[in-house]
Amino acid sequence: MKIVVQKYGGTSVSDIKKIKKIALNIKKLKKTGVSIVLVVSAMAGETDRLIKLINSVSDVPNEREYDQIISTGEKISSSLLVMALNEINVNAISLDASKINLMTNNIHSKASIVSIGTKEIKKYLKKKFVVVVPGFQGINSNNDITTLGRGGSDLSAVAIAGILKADRCELLKDDVDGIYSADPRLYNKAKKINHISYQEMLEMSSLGSKVLQSKAVEMANQLNIKIYVKSTFNNSRKGTLVMKEDKIPIKDKKVVSGITHDLKQAKISIIGIKDTPGIASKIFKPISQSGIIVDMIVQNISTEGETDLTFTVPKEDLNKTFKILRENKSKLSYKKLIKDEKIALISIVGAGMKIHTGIATRMFTSLAKSKINISMISTSEIKISCVINQTSCKKAVSSLHKEFGLD
Amino acid sequence: MKIVVQKYGGTSVSDIKKIKKIALNIKKLKKTGVSIVLVVSAMAGETDRLIKLINSVSDVPNEREYDQIISTGEKISSSLLVMALNEINVNAISLDASKINLMTNNIHSKASIVSIGTKEIKKYLKKKFVVVVPGFQGINSNNDITTLGRGGSDLSAVAIAGILKADRCELLKDDVDGIYSADPRLYNKAKKINHISYQEMLEMSSLGSKVLQSKAVEMANQLNIKIYVKSTFNNSRKGTLVMKEDKIPIKDKKVVSGITHDLKQAKISIIGIKDTPGIASKIFKPISQSGIIVDMIVQNISTEGETDLTFTVPKEDLNKTFKILRENKSKLSYKKLIKDEKIALISIVGAGMKIHTGIATRMFTSLAKSKINISMISTSEIKISCVINQTSCKKAVSSLHKEFGLD
Repeated sequence: MKIVVQKYGGTSVSDIKKIKKIALNIKKLKKTGVSIVLVVSAMAGETDRLIKLINSVSDVPNEREYDQIISTGEKISSSLLVMALNEINVNAISLDASKINLMTNNIHSKASIVSIGTKEIKKYLKKKFVVVVPGFQGINSNNDITTLGRGGSDLSAVAIAGILKADRCELLKDDVDGIYSADPRLYNKAKKINHISYQEMLEMSSLGSKVLQSKAVEMANQLNIKIYVKSTFNNSRKGTLVMKEDKIPIKDKKVVSGITHDLKQAKISIIGIKDTPGIASKIFKPISQSGIIVDMIVQNISTEGETDLTFTVPKEDLNKTFKILRENKSKLSYKKLIKDEKIALISIVGAGMKIHTGIATRMFTSLAKSKINISMISTSEIKISCVINQTSCKKAVSSLHKEFGLD
Repeated sequence: MKIVVQKYGGTSVSDIKKIKKIALNIKKLKKTGVSIVLVVSAMAGETDRLIKLINSVSDVPNEREYDQIISTGEKISSSLLVMALNEINVNAISLDASKINLMTNNIHSKASIVSIGTKEIKKYLKKKFVVVVPGFQGINSNNDITTLGRGGSDLSAVAIAGILKADRCELLKDDVDGIYSADPRLYNKAKKINHISYQEMLEMSSLGSKVLQSKAVEMANQLNIKIYVKSTFNNSRKGTLVMKEDKIPIKDKKVVSGITHDLKQAKISIIGIKDTPGIASKIFKPISQSGIIVDMIVQNISTEGETDLTFTVPKEDLNKTFKILRENKSKLSYKKLIKDEKIALISIVGAGMKIHTGIATRMFTSLAKSKINISMISTSEIKISCVINQTSCKKAVSSLHKEFGLD
């Protein structure tokens, strides 16, 4: 039994016309003889509508009830898709988390999948039913509904593909038709990538590309499930295959696969701080304890026992971080705090960096030629990130895209 | 432990402001020391929105998926109410049908309640939590969600009050504040009824008064649970108590308790049908098999072996009924079919009819004085119904209201 797992995102099911179109595509696919499991997101806008309702009741809503509310959208779209399939004589059934024992841990709104049962799914696949699973949700050991975080339907799909030993997991999108070498909305010479490794995709996801959820890529890597990102409605267009690096055809291997940009970070500098052992821990402990994720950290060379420290946090956490630093001013004894919200994080990602040298130099030179100043640098095995001025973002993407032969 | 079960209808929870107001009322009630179970409807308009979505996908939607979709509205409003209670420091939890084992039979969209577990509810009541149950829904033996039909939250509330041996079940409404002697929107001299018997309420519900669901009244009667219908937000106003007839104070006993009208019926006449044994069965069998409920039936006196037969069906089933009759024309061999959608069903309801005579005559005379023609009559132990022209509806209500001393 060849099993295909397909996930349809919120913009793909945003209205009934689209849902009916998807049903027709699935009918065609079913005629090829494969068994089909669909994972469906909530209709675009629905989850936001529910969150708005919740926020008008409470700033710190009860987590269990929160998940109970925001999980309803996927149930609705799943059942609508089943109805649309039935209308064109395709047998289908929706099976929610409690039906397929999609168990998670107990961390509401950001739950991790622990296990998934296959009995119910396989029972209906054997009966030639299309099985539709509401994405983004599971149940905990107390049988309460949990949700997997924004983009969590990707994770549902990959996990289900893994447990069913599906050949691959198709993530169908209406707004994009694959992974691009840069954001095509920012830079129109961006090219679709045919093959990309899990590691590269992971870096791109965490560096601002919102096409795939990081957790889903991580799980696909662990379970060795190929992810195929493609267009929902344009069947003729080829998408992007996310897979093991060593299986990628040589012709598709590049030194740098993609350029990402992230405008959602802010920079904080702590000026004139005593350069004593343990000072970094004193600064970052209260920040991380508040659940704020610090990304890049740069410490200046110390002069006369004093130093400056610069780091980035998500823009939405900027005020909270400032408040924490001010509350700890006496303990930290710094001279002043500077914030900068007008930054862009520009990164180049490529598995080729592991074997090629001089990539960083090429990046810095290329940015310098475009008169772009770099204020922070961070590197890992397969990526180099620079913080630059936000207004130079587009120029940086285009010059790096050219520099690394991606145009 | 004194338990109060309250049910809030859709217009009572139609926006967040109202939900917060209800939470405040409940906080006050809780301070009196009672244990509180709330049953909540979907926010007004939500169920209609979902049905519209469904209808744009399918004319005959899959019943299981249908119930899965339309049951989401009550889950959302229940969790929102829990959040609103938490905001003002009242402990609360929502427990859905699967949590409290609210089991039903397997008739989707019109399910009947089979049993309800009390363990989970009592556990949280003991912990001093307010328990909130999404109304209108249960689960069948297959663990699929079922729904109880329009107005089904009334039924949920009465059944829960019954199983918990609650003193009474309060049904709180925003659009009405009790049961009236006639529809106050049609006739402004209608008076609120302080006490009414289950039997009278049942007749009124099935004769067009939409305040309470018939099934809920029936169950309250069986379980001997008093229903108290009152205003959600106007606490000072007294509502209506639906209870056993023999417990109603003498001063509140009337010959006729209420006048109802129903504009949702249509009349069909079959002209020139052979008056042979079994003809009625031949006519009504295929109609009832299609799930159409025939209410009144009148057969004319037969002349020369031929007769006419007139009956009423819900307006929405008129075309379907006509189609069935046409399909069976050769078998039934009638001369022609006549339909009339412009009718009103006017009824007087009162337990006093059991011991008083001449009530029917007073009704007919009163209508005749107002020059209203009666085209069909039907009686039961405690009600008399007449079909009249729709345009005379208001005049009929006012003259009967006066005639039976209800003004």
